[in-house]
This record gives sequence, structure tokens and C-alpha cells, in this order.
Amino acid sequence: MVLIMRDMKRIYLDHAASMPVDPRVLQFAQPYLSEVGNPSSLYEFGQHAKQIIEDSRRKIAEFINAESEKTIIFTGSATESNNIAIRGTALRNKNDGTEILASAIEHISVLNPMKDLQKNGWVFRTIPVDSYGIVDLHQLSALLSKNTIVTSINYGNNEIGTIEPIKKISEIVHDKGKYLHVDGKAAAGRIPIDVQAEGIDLLTLSSNDLYGPKGAGVLYIKPGVKVQSIMPGGGQERGLRSGTENIFAIAGMGEACVIAKKEMKSESNRLQNIRDKLISEIKVIEETYLTGHPVNRLPHHASFRISHIEGESILLSMDMYNIQVATGSACSSKTLEPSHVLLAIGLKHEEAHGSMVMTLGRSNTISQVPEIVKAVKETVVRLRNLSPLK
Amino acid sequence: MVLIMRDMKRIYLDHAASMPVDPRVLQFAQPYLSEVGNPSSLYEFGQHAKQIIEDSRRKIAEFINAESEKTIIFTGSATESNNIAIRGTALRNKNDGTEILASAIEHISVLNPMKDLQKNGWVFRTIPVDSYGIVDLHQLSALLSKNTIVTSINYGNNEIGTIEPIKKISEIVHDKGKYLHVDGKAAAGRIPIDVQAEGIDLLTLSSNDLYGPKGAGVLYIKPGVKVQSIMPGGGQERGLRSGTENIFAIAGMGEACVIAKKEMKSESNRLQNIRDKLISEIKVIEETYLTGHPVNRLPHHASFRISHIEGESILLSMDMYNIQVATGSACSSKTLEPSHVLLAIGLKHEEAHGSMVMTLGRSNTISQVPEIVKAVKETVVRLRNLSPLK
Repeated sequence: MVLIMRDMKRIYLDHAASMPVDPRVLQFAQPYLSEVGNPSSLYEFGQHAKQIIEDSRRKIAEFINAESEKTIIFTGSATESNNIAIRGTALRNKNDGTEILASAIEHISVLNPMKDLQKNGWVFRTIPVDSYGIVDLHQLSALLSKNTIVTSINYGNNEIGTIEPIKKISEIVHDKGKYLHVDGKAAAGRIPIDVQAEGIDLLTLSSNDLYGPKGAGVLYIKPGVKVQSIMPGGGQERGLRSGTENIFAIAGMGEACVIAKKEMKSESNRLQNIRDKLISEIKVIEETYLTGHPVNRLPHHASFRISHIEGESILLSMDMYNIQVATGSACSSKTLEPSHVLLAIGLKHEEAHGSMVMTLGRSNTISQVPEIVKAVKETVVRLRNLSPLK
Repeated sequence: MVLIMRDMKRIYLDHAASMPVDPRVLQFAQPYLSEVGNPSSLYEFGQHAKQIIEDSRRKIAEFINAESEKTIIFTGSATESNNIAIRGTALRNKNDGTEILASAIEHISVLNPMKDLQKNGWVFRTIPVDSYGIVDLHQLSALLSKNTIVTSINYGNNEIGTIEPIKKISEIVHDKGKYLHVDGKAAAGRIPIDVQAEGIDLLTLSSNDLYGPKGAGVLYIKPGVKVQSIMPGGGQERGLRSGTENIFAIAGMGEACVIAKKEMKSESNRLQNIRDKLISEIKVIEETYLTGHPVNRLPHHASFRISHIEGESILLSMDMYNIQVATGSACSSKTLEPSHVLLAIGLKHEEAHGSMVMTLGRSNTISQVPEIVKAVKETVVRLRNLSPLK
């Protein structure tokens, strides 16, 4: 029976972990794999490579309404952007203060650099969130001081889909502290981000999360914000990120932003319809609960906790139906620790273990919903029958 | 006339700056752009991605005769590999000593992280080289102590092509100091590198310099060598390099190593023939001298200093013939400083400014030599007629 199911078309619901490159992006960027110079070279061929990078910078600046294309720094990944945003500001501004803040539900590529700084004398505190994952604004205000150099908050959460009130957070941060860094990896391309209107000082973007190639990330840096390099070398990207530019990935990311800007509204509406139908049909399964905010959530994101069964077993069972889901963040899959995000919203250890995350994308259709729901129902029944947790 | 020359086929002689992806590599890796999971995901689709990475690791380990595929860590670039090799060992072993060494002709992605450490209390010294760029072994021995954690030497130099006696250097380094890091970016794929036979503790490789896609680098770490992460996050690559793996670039780099292993000997012989003909015909131009070692040099590498004219003008003039050459390292093209490599081999400032570097690759043929030599000759005559330096 498993074999028969394997022949069915794959239903991929783990876009938070990895996304295919959009064929239009590939068509646009493909030539730069086989024919391109080094943008630091002065001959025309090299200067053409430079022009491709500058075009991409402009497209990305427009996508997030940045002041100018000069605010866009290309990195190798969202992890690297987060590291520069945190270590790069902390090191550069240490004479102004050594306190750093992050919400308790940030990605580990935000939390780990902060813990590293903590080992080296910085004061690192986490801001609690409510049971939906919304940052506690009173606690944020209480934890901030004039010594707080950088406060890092995700725009939307990868694991529970909750969208944070960034504009309000920005006002509170700037009332006392210095910089607001926003990890926009999960939210960008799903909901509009306007760095100027929302008062964002530093913003992380990932190419692959926008259907662009892996190998490019962006750190938006508002004019005047002081950051230093964390990986010195050839001095590319205004000295902030060394290494020969990955023109293919950079060109692809720019084009991915153009497509996202054009199609985001209709595509997000489409995904939200599928998502809402999934949520309404899955949460009626006995002892199955939505995690994250019911309304203020990313339109492509559905996440649940299912009592008495393990997320890893859910994932493997769903895979037998050729449906790919996640349990917590892909990066943490190696550990048996429950997700820090689910613990932060108040779940007990045993509750946090039964997590299932679905992130939708362009390949998903509303007609897939019955098959997905049927697979979840059968999975829950079968696993509960086997479960010692029951 | 310039327009007519533009229509001629490009003769690209700047492979040190950027290389096209080999069509066979592209064919092999292309599927992973549009269809691939996250290797941290437990479903089969994700585990397949993991398998692709492990296959690539094995291919690269075989290419450099590493102890096992576990010694291969994927990074985003050679710059990142160099940074991890230096900062990662210095930080991890600081209780054993805080001295670090590099040859005076290392790439700035080696020298700059060392200078950064120097600002933070490490003792950083550079080892002088002779007029050919060969590391002074007596000075190396004299500068080493039991407190020397990492000594960094390039296998072959990007700017002057000189190959260092790595095996001898390794013996001297290990007589007193701890780790030898070798930047193999320019040499790998041109001459064989055997990490075990040559006693290398850490080796930097770049995908693009092997005709692989940009976006992947490798750091080989000999078993037992202690290194720590410099960019914390999801803990990929045994905790040493966080960030979702760039499967396309990683798969491509592995395949590029398979091709290089198979074809290196014959291809390097072919390029060396072209290179030797170029050198013999260019160095007879009046007041034009080979830089770097005449014999112990990378087979694809020809570099010159030409009196009374500027490297930048040479580059732009050659570009009018649709021939792309370099002047010093591409990364330094932005500055007007003469190359630190040329100063280190004893050239005066004005001599170092007249540098021309040609790095050959698969697209070059012996039949291009007359056209290249003619363009150099005409360039030299024209520029010297204009030159105030004359």
C-alpha cells in the first residue's frame, strides 16, 4: 500500500525548510552560471557583472521600500545576515553599551550569536511572548535601556506562523534602545514589509525563501546604522561582507523579489484560502490544536500540536503518503530537545513534542486539502493506537 | 578599429578572478536547483538531499586524499573557509597560545582575519618571502614557537603563481607550532594536493576555482584538529558552519572535483604549454619581466611586470582587444595601493604598479598566443608613448 501511495504526486508542505527555484528566476539567472566576470575586475566584462549586482540591489530595495539600493548588502545566507546584524552591531557599538535583546522565539541563528556574545561579556536577555507567540511589549519596554545596542525580533515566526507588531515594537525599541533588527526570512514574500514605514534598522532576507537560488541572503542596513564586518577579506559589499560575489544567486534573488512584489497579494490570498481550509479541517481532530496566532499569522502557515503522539512519527507517517511536513524547525531536527519556540509559548515538554508544521507554496492547490486531511486523520489514529504516551 | 576587435571572440585570461561553471558540472547539479529537500528534514525527500551532500563530501575527500569524508566541511566560499581556519582555530586554542603566522604574500582573506585577531591581543607576524615568492624557511623556523597556533601559507600564489614547498613547510611548522593551514584556492585542480602526504592540517578549497558553481567552499580539517564555529546558528556541518546547505553548489563542487581529478594532469600539461609560449614571447618585450618563480609555478599562471606603464591601463587596453587580464588580485582592484604581494617580493612601488597577470583555463588554446602577444606588444608601445612615467 505504501508503494502505491509513493506513486502519487508529492504534496510538499515544508516550504519553510527548502523551496524550489522559480523557473522564471532560473531562466533569468541561468546565463550568469556559465558566463560572467568578477565585479571587481575593471574590464567591461567584469563591470557588466557589477551592473547585474547593482540591478539586483535596486530590485530588492524596491521590494522592501528601502531608502536606496545602497542599503542592501548581499551575504551568503539568512544565517550570515543574522550573524552580521547581531555580532556586527554589537562589536561596532560596544562603547555605547553591551546589552542585547531577542524575543524568546527567535531562530537559533539569532539566539546563538547572542549567546556567544553573552559568553564574551555582553548582557543578553530574552523577551517573553504570550501563548500566541506575540512579544510582550511591556516586558520589552522594561528590558530595554540606553545600553541596549540591538534588539532582534522575527517579523513572522517559522514554527508557529505568528506575525509580530513590528511597527509598535520599533517605537518601543527606539524610545530607549539603539537598533531594531528584524528577521524577515519567513515573512518576506508572504506579507508586505516596508522598512521605512515600520522603522526597521536591519532586516534579514533569504533568497531561497523567495523562490530564489540558495547562496544569497540580504542584510538591509538603514543609512547611519553602524555595523562592522565579521568575516574580513577582500572587502566586497562596502567592506561588510567579503568574498567574490555569487552573481547567479544575487541576480536570481533580485528577480525573485520582482516576482514576489508583483504576485504576493494574489498568491498570499490563494494560499491563505488553502491554509484556512486545512486549519479548520485539521483542528477538529480530537485533541489537536492550532499553535501560534489564529489571525495574525503568515498566510501560508499552519501549525498544530497533536496530543499523545510524536512529531517525528507524524512526519514519517505523512511521508508514507508522500506528503512532506515539518516538526519544529528543520535545523533542530537533529536534536531530541523540544522546540524552544513551543516551550516559550507555554507548552509542556510532552505537548511540544507533538508538533506538526505545514508551510504552503506555489505548488499547492485547494484540491489537495482532502488528501492532506485524510492522511493526517489516518496518521493520528494509527500513531495513537501505537503510542505509549496515550 | 576598436569596434571591429570587439566582434572577435573573447580571450579570457582571468580565471583567477572568476570561472565559468563546467557544462558537465551544470548538467549534474542543475536538478538540485528545482527539486530538493532540506537535508535536516527526516522525510525521504530530505534524506535524499543529505545523501547528495555526503556523496559530494566523499568525492572531495578523494580529490585531496583526505583520511575520510568526515574531514570535509562545506562553507559558502574560500573567504569563509580561510576565516574559519584562522579565527576558528585561534579562538578554540587560545589557552595553548596566541601567536599566529602567515606568509607576507597570503590573500587578504587570510591576512585580514589575522590583523583582526592582532587587534584583540594575538601576536601576528608575517614570514618574508624571497624575490620569487618562496617562503623563507629559516625565518619561518625562527618565528615559530610552541605558542604558534596556526601558520597559514598558500599552496600556490594567485598573483605571481609561485608554488610553496608545502611538505617542507609542514615539517618545520610541526616541529614547533601547532597547525598548518594551506590556502589551496589557486592551486587545487592545477597541481595535485595530498593533505596526508604533505602534512596539511587545514586546507581551503573554492568550488568556482574548480569550474564549480559559486556559493560553495570547503575547509578540510584533519582529524583531531580543534576548530570552533565563527558563525553560530542551526549547527549544520558538525556545528562548524551554520546555514541551510546549498545543495546545488555542493553537488556541483563534488562533481567538479571528480572531473578535475580525472583531467588535471593532461589539462595542466596543455595549459603549461600555452603558458610557457606566452612567457617566452612576452618577456622578450623590452623592460618586461616575469614575476614569481620561473619553474615552481602554477601551470596556468603567467605574470609580469612591465616598466613605465600602469597595470590598470594595461588591463583596459587589453580589454579593447577583447582579451581579459588582471593586474594584481581582483579584490584589490578598488584600491590604488600597489599589491602587497609584489612589494613582498621586493618590487618598488612604481615597479609593482605595472603588473599584468594572466591565468589560463579550459577555453584557452595555443592558437590564441599570437593574438595575445600582439595585443600586449601594441599595448606596451602605445602606453609607453603616452606615459609620464617613461
